[in-house]
Amino acid sequence: MADWGSHLSTMRSTAPLVLNITNFVAMNVMANVLLATGASPAMAHAEEEIAEITALSDALTINFGTADAGWMRGIFRAVETARGQGIPWVLDPVAVGVSTLRKQTAARLIEMGPAVIRGNASEILVLAGQGAGGKGVDATDGVTEAAAAARALASRTGAVVAVTGAVDYVTDGCRAFSVANGHPLMPRVTALGCSLTGVVGAFLVGQPTLEAATAALACYGVAGERAGKCASGPGSFAVDFLDALAALTPDELSQMARVTPA
Amino acid sequence: MADWGSHLSTMRSTAPLVLNITNFVAMNVMANVLLATGASPAMAHAEEEIAEITALSDALTINFGTADAGWMRGIFRAVETARGQGIPWVLDPVAVGVSTLRKQTAARLIEMGPAVIRGNASEILVLAGQGAGGKGVDATDGVTEAAAAARALASRTGAVVAVTGAVDYVTDGCRAFSVANGHPLMPRVTALGCSLTGVVGAFLVGQPTLEAATAALACYGVAGERAGKCASGPGSFAVDFLDALAALTPDELSQMARVTPA
Amino acid sequence: MADWGSHLSTMRSTAPLVLNITNFVAMNVMANVLLATGASPAMAHAEEEIAEITALSDALTINFGTADAGWMRGIFRAVETARGQGIPWVLDPVAVGVSTLRKQTAARLIEMGPAVIRGNASEILVLAGQGAGGKGVDATDGVTEAAAAARALASRTGAVVAVTGAVDYVTDGCRAFSVANGHPLMPRVTALGCSLTGVVGAFLVGQPTLEAATAALACYGVAGERAGKCASGPGSFAVDFLDALAALTPDELSQMARVTPA
Repeated sequence: MADWGSHLSTMRSTAPLVLNITNFVAMNVMANVLLATGASPAMAHAEEEIAEITALSDALTINFGTADAGWMRGIFRAVETARGQGIPWVLDPVAVGVSTLRKQTAARLIEMGPAVIRGNASEILVLAGQGAGGKGVDATDGVTEAAAAARALASRTGAVVAVTGAVDYVTDGCRAFSVANGHPLMPRVTALGCSLTGVVGAFLVGQPTLEAATAALACYGVAGERAGKCASGPGSFAVDFLDALAALTPDELSQMARVTPA
Repeated sequence: MADWGSHLSTMRSTAPLVLNITNFVAMNVMANVLLATGASPAMAHAEEEIAEITALSDALTINFGTADAGWMRGIFRAVETARGQGIPWVLDPVAVGVSTLRKQTAARLIEMGPAVIRGNASEILVLAGQGAGGKGVDATDGVTEAAAAARALASRTGAVVAVTGAVDYVTDGCRAFSVANGHPLMPRVTALGCSLTGVVGAFLVGQPTLEAATAALACYGVAGERAGKCASGPGSFAVDFLDALAALTPDELSQMARVTPA
Repeated sequence: MADWGSHLSTMRSTAPLVLNITNFVAMNVMANVLLATGASPAMAHAEEEIAEITALSDALTINFGTADAGWMRGIFRAVETARGQGIPWVLDPVAVGVSTLRKQTAARLIEMGPAVIRGNASEILVLAGQGAGGKGVDATDGVTEAAAAARALASRTGAVVAVTGAVDYVTDGCRAFSVANGHPLMPRVTALGCSLTGVVGAFLVGQPTLEAATAALACYGVAGERAGKCASGPGSFAVDFLDALAALTPDELSQMARVTPA
């Protein structure tokens, strides 16, 4: 049994400061998810200060879900700072198919060396130049259909690509894992996908990218399974999920993770 | 017994993509409310992409609660796109009485053909040129006092006007319904009024406006009643309310709706 | 036994309209916290309307957590309006140490007569010209280390300074109180510190500043203790905390407050 829980304990022992430029819908949830998992979240975006704050951070995550032109400038400044300082960063190409602004921004960002690209199947297909892009923020394509696109995208960009859905698929272009943890209520709570991007960022700090991203996905899915045991619907699930993330131990993660080479 | 539940099942069968330009306080709640009810929410506002995203959507809702000049440009671009493509849209004139910016924006928007205007009594009175405008976002006038103003506003604009409060009043200027469902904790949870605007948008898609808006209000109020049965305060009410929206069946809505011609 | 509960009943009897310019992470939580405690929250920031809305408000609170240049203009306009009209306002110098923009903004704001400055130990030390500023939004210094800095800052600015942490310290430069209420889960829920700033604003209206701020901190801490009795983690704590704020009576606050002259 691979020791996926060790990645959680490593992350918690450093409590990395994860800076997130994300959308307005996700900010509060993402901060709570990161706190519950054991990381230290920061949210900021202003062009005037983002380089300074990025330089203080251990990891950076980018989601342009509600960004406008001003935010895009902050995003690029943050990513440039992260690159310059060797800070790992994660790209979440949320709903990339819905606008030209998103497609162009994503095209520039994937050339700037993200450590991980995390999206749903429709988003990854759009990045790979395939697929229509889903329905708003929701995927209309399956993870299996996106696996080849993910491998190609990983090979081309050098990023680890994580396609999340009922069963997640994570690849660096050569090796790949599938993660079968999770719960059907997870896509019924807004911003849980966006918030996962932050958790991936937290796990990256000082850990090998493919394994760290895989462990982050397993951690999230296992917490979802535990939350789903008692939840009466999406409202109580969201509450129980935070409790489950905080209560999850590395041992439990190692035991419950359903990760297989893919 | 009118079959109000049929409007819920029609909405769920299409899971309409509802684009919402709303305030920062409401965004996350509104997305969760729409997901729980059975619709597919989207939040975006940037002038650079809003026309493209509007064109992909089944309905649009507008709330200028925390908007500034840049957001207002996005709002008008979205509404113009919706008009051009026959996409129904809902106006939520939140706290319209508190600033000149809001009054002027609302005055322009009500001339642009909203399918529904949903507000509290004080907001509707301000739109109708009466009343001082409430206390911040909260109504200081009763729904009954606003009924005549609502009918006049509906007749003048062609919109269905929904005045929400302890007992809601919905009118197209000729016919009217009152909806007596709800729970006293609902105004104690922030953004539930704003989020209702999204649900009204979801119900509009492919359904007759007056009946759809009335059914949306009844659905919301019935879920509130169910949530209120077990809640210990506003925190647990907010959680239970999402669970109740997700669990509510069309049959239960038909049975519990307290809608009467008014 | 000092009657700290009387400050809560005074606040509730007027249900003051508290206008908050705060960060995106905190807005929803802060509005719910204010509603649960018994105040009437408003959130707005746009330069175009903020003066009008400030003039309608009973108190103002400022937190520049996710502000950019445009928001900063709104902040200064609101503060100028509050000063001109004698409306008390509270400064929350969130993560002031992380950027030049924040340090400069805070330096200007503390000269503009805040009634209260509320921050964690690291933030107060930065304002006093000491300390490195913590880790993101989290304090890395203790309240005791910041007490002298708080007294000096209060004497220099005329503001009451509240340093919050495991045991809070509140001073006007001459007198001081410590508040020993609270629960270890409070810093594990994002935005509870930011939201406390709003509650301080609510208590200020028509009440002596040092006592009002102290009572607000005690109220918050006592509600935290009650919420902590049943919570299973940070998710359920956040829910129970809102219920506890709403359920707390003035008598219970008087009995449970652990406030001592310091």
